[in-house]
Amino acid sequence: MQSAPEQAAPEVGGPIEDLYAVVPAGGAGTRLWPLSRRAHPKFLLDLTGSGRTLLQGTWDRLQPLTGPDRVVVVTGRAHAGAVAEQLPDLPADALLAEPSPRDSMAAIGLAAAVLAHRHGDVVLASFAADHVIHGEAAFAQAVGAAVAAARDGAVATIGIAATTPSTAFGYIEVGEPLPGAAGERGARGVVAFREKPDAATAAEYVADGRHRWNAGMFVVRARVLLDHLAQQRPELAAGLTEIAAAWDTPAEPDTLARVWPTLEKIAIDYAIAEPVAAAGGVAVAPGDFAWDDVGDWDSLGALLAPDAGGVHVLGDADATLVRDSAGAVVVAAGARTVTVLGVPDAVVVDTPDALLVTTRDQAQGVKRAVDALAERGADRLL
Amino acid sequence: MQSAPEQAAPEVGGPIEDLYAVVPAGGAGTRLWPLSRRAHPKFLLDLTGSGRTLLQGTWDRLQPLTGPDRVVVVTGRAHAGAVAEQLPDLPADALLAEPSPRDSMAAIGLAAAVLAHRHGDVVLASFAADHVIHGEAAFAQAVGAAVAAARDGAVATIGIAATTPSTAFGYIEVGEPLPGAAGERGARGVVAFREKPDAATAAEYVADGRHRWNAGMFVVRARVLLDHLAQQRPELAAGLTEIAAAWDTPAEPDTLARVWPTLEKIAIDYAIAEPVAAAGGVAVAPGDFAWDDVGDWDSLGALLAPDAGGVHVLGDADATLVRDSAGAVVVAAGARTVTVLGVPDAVVVDTPDALLVTTRDQAQGVKRAVDALAERGADRLL
Repeated sequence: MQSAPEQAAPEVGGPIEDLYAVVPAGGAGTRLWPLSRRAHPKFLLDLTGSGRTLLQGTWDRLQPLTGPDRVVVVTGRAHAGAVAEQLPDLPADALLAEPSPRDSMAAIGLAAAVLAHRHGDVVLASFAADHVIHGEAAFAQAVGAAVAAARDGAVATIGIAATTPSTAFGYIEVGEPLPGAAGERGARGVVAFREKPDAATAAEYVADGRHRWNAGMFVVRARVLLDHLAQQRPELAAGLTEIAAAWDTPAEPDTLARVWPTLEKIAIDYAIAEPVAAAGGVAVAPGDFAWDDVGDWDSLGALLAPDAGGVHVLGDADATLVRDSAGAVVVAAGARTVTVLGVPDAVVVDTPDALLVTTRDQAQGVKRAVDALAERGADRLL
Repeated sequence: MQSAPEQAAPEVGGPIEDLYAVVPAGGAGTRLWPLSRRAHPKFLLDLTGSGRTLLQGTWDRLQPLTGPDRVVVVTGRAHAGAVAEQLPDLPADALLAEPSPRDSMAAIGLAAAVLAHRHGDVVLASFAADHVIHGEAAFAQAVGAAVAAARDGAVATIGIAATTPSTAFGYIEVGEPLPGAAGERGARGVVAFREKPDAATAAEYVADGRHRWNAGMFVVRARVLLDHLAQQRPELAAGLTEIAAAWDTPAEPDTLARVWPTLEKIAIDYAIAEPVAAAGGVAVAPGDFAWDDVGDWDSLGALLAPDAGGVHVLGDADATLVRDSAGAVVVAAGARTVTVLGVPDAVVVDTPDALLVTTRDQAQGVKRAVDALAERGADRLL
């Protein structure tokens, strides 16, 4: 093998010039009920016992790459106050409050349009506020590789090494190395995005070595994103451009109030990633770090280190008494003593006004229970 | 078959002359933690959702036989106030407060000595305050048969029809009909009392038709009981006689304080029932009613009618959401919403300061958990 000189090597260990991080902070985290609520959704919670919420963890992870002045958070108006409180170093004008949820394309597109309006054709990198990552150096390296691809005009994403045949995540089918990409760590083409598979398909994905988990991270030049959007969704692009032009001016509130509700509700995956990938315009940088979207109590259990009895406790461990319950996930957030006897893989989530008891293999069913409570009109619990 | 005229027919449907009911109200009900606590033990709780506590249910059941003036309750000083509150028609001098727990022989013996001192050689019938019975007429009939045997000088008990080979109860081996007993419903001799058996032995007991459950009910003339006690446990008998002589006099407090702590701690089963049975002096009346000592959450579950999903709920059913959990026992006593998803036979007991999650087949293990909390010094939870 020839050792070719590397071009556009990923930058690791310092800030990346002209990179703006965009953090969409949305999503109810319904499957993490009753800890996650509409008023206190998943991203505002410390789900790992680290002392930092998922939003703060996302902020901390981005600081080496952007510093405090190049992070933008997009969130619902209801959560703007909590976000500002949790991120005291976030500049006031870097908190973009949506009047109502219009899905991820509007959220990220708004940030792109505002950033382009303010700073020109910067590179933006979008990371959800409610994921957990371990391996800061590998994360920074992957972002660097994605930024390199983005500077070359690609819509870049980060594909996470698929360590298990998960059926809870979408997958990215990885293609050939991009010209000039930095060896094994450099970005490659994306053949296609794949929806959450069934178990057999997931096993094939992991076995064939060509598939990585789709963590919903996008790295792209603001102008490139807005151009793709103008081509794929011209009305949405026009609406966002109109809002961005009024941003930072006295016309902002009226424009937002008039235009925002008309914006199409669509995920960035469908609006941009999939069609552009089909046209060969998406790159994927390998992300060889531990990542989880903490989608439910089972996945949270895997993130919490077990105690001597194999029990995963979040909250006040001194307030729990758990016996013969290996694998159990116990959340003591109700200021009470939680006793669990002989229920392996139990999920027990105790909060002041609601209690959940189930098992890890039924963690996905929590959403149906929340739906049932909503049907009962138990809004105060949602 | 000849139809012989019945002698000493059980009296059913009205008060039984000279019968005094003695209700020992003690026992912590540790296996029903966290609902049952030292300060609010099992007998003070409404465990069946009837609106009446177990103590009140016992009182209600006795009223047709004794009226309000021939019931005596023996309880610890700490619970005397609660007992008086729950039984407003109990005469003040019918509430005997023990300075400290000295087991069932001292409690029932004290009542016998006080009753003999006050009323002479009455018949007393002792029933625990924390059992559940369904079938008032059959209960009254069994008491009537036992009273008939007691009037003839026997220590009489009531043997419950053993509907399952329970290993949680002791058994009574039933002998021949007593002379003059009223046919099938009349009392018979007791061959022996049997300790809680293993499963195989319990199955034999149920199969052979000669064994009945020992519900710890004793019916006996006060003088007969005290005479047996004087023979079997002369010091205990002397102590109780001394206390009873001072009862209702100014000397009561000092005598009680001096003598009570010296009394032997022993169950009436060992002090009287077993030795007297061995000597042929115990009779058993058949009790063909539903009875349970509500020893643990599993047994409570069997007493609570299941809902459409097979779930046994105690407390506010509207505050519960239970799915795919047939057989579960759910106690909603914490003023919160209790959600249980897919845990058949779960036991979930929610109270304001402590939560228990286990399964019915591990209900006996609750005592060990309470012991562990005691070791931690969590006295406020006990």
